[in-house]
Amino acid sequence: MEAERIIMGIDPGTNIMGYGILRVQGRHAEMVTMGVIDLHKYADQYLKLGRIYERVTGIIEAYLPDELAIEAPFFGKNVQSMLKLGRAQGVAIAAAIQRQVPIHEYAPMQIKMALTGNGSASKEQVAYMLRQVLKIPEDAMLPWLDATDGLAAAYCHYIESQRPTSGSKVRSWKEFARQRGIV
Amino acid sequence: MEAERIIMGIDPGTNIMGYGILRVQGRHAEMVTMGVIDLHKYADQYLKLGRIYERVTGIIEAYLPDELAIEAPFFGKNVQSMLKLGRAQGVAIAAAIQRQVPIHEYAPMQIKMALTGNGSASKEQVAYMLRQVLKIPEDAMLPWLDATDGLAAAYCHYIESQRPTSGSKVRSWKEFARQRGIV
Repeated sequence: MEAERIIMGIDPGTNIMGYGILRVQGRHAEMVTMGVIDLHKYADQYLKLGRIYERVTGIIEAYLPDELAIEAPFFGKNVQSMLKLGRAQGVAIAAAIQRQVPIHEYAPMQIKMALTGNGSASKEQVAYMLRQVLKIPEDAMLPWLDATDGLAAAYCHYIESQRPTSGSKVRSWKEFARQRGIV
Repeated sequence: MEAERIIMGIDPGTNIMGYGILRVQGRHAEMVTMGVIDLHKYADQYLKLGRIYERVTGIIEAYLPDELAIEAPFFGKNVQSMLKLGRAQGVAIAAAIQRQVPIHEYAPMQIKMALTGNGSASKEQVAYMLRQVLKIPEDAMLPWLDATDGLAAAYCHYIESQRPTSGSKVRSWKEFARQRGIV
């Protein structure tokens, strides 16, 4: 009997923040929940940032994750959008630090790679693979791909932390499939 | 007898964060304190961000500022440094939001302009003018210009909020000097 781990994943955006909670026991992973924090209705950026802080804190208190995985792009269109994104990430990180939740970051490409084996997969492909590997019922899927992106970050962290030696590369399709429980 | 206002100013950086506390009563402004949060010793970026959150929260709790003024550059060398800066700003903003402190942002150029009348003044010139207008004793000056930059953000907010109509431009040297109590 292996200890249960709860992994929270988030995809922080300045208008919508997606999140997902993954419960892992040994080689079995299942979705607990996923959702989005809709920030469109807040015109003021401080209200947006305050809302991110409150909601991330609330989700941490509700599900008590052992770890937080963040989808964190390292490149962006321009410096202004990166500054905004950095602020949104910053308040989410502050909420996790305040609750002593260790943080792990993954680039969008790494997350896509972990789920589909293709670093340039679409959000739809990522959502499709998540449905398959986590056996999510059709009616539990949400219309926002931000939610599956958040859950995908959690799943990516699960896969990465399962590797025998950290940083090792997946060497074959067989190993890739085995790690995901497909074969 | 006008109500006293406490304005906290910060210059958030990823390695050193400068701060200053200004006490304002009517047209009289004085420095309460200034200092730096040295983040060099924390190798891990989450320790740095956690430290910013804790220290900003601690300073807010100690001095109970009515407002927070942040020096916030809107341009940067590259997207990666802006993302880092955004994160540092984000955790400081989260700390202020948690304590219900209203936030005001000023570009470096605005702060330099408010203090020296020259948007491209050096940090030394800003520190010199601060010493003059706030009558800071020589031995109260710190060797870090980040501290005076933080205090300068608070001073800039005081000047900006004193203007009869928000957003109005300073029309003459006389008005500029009068606002600063130089003449």
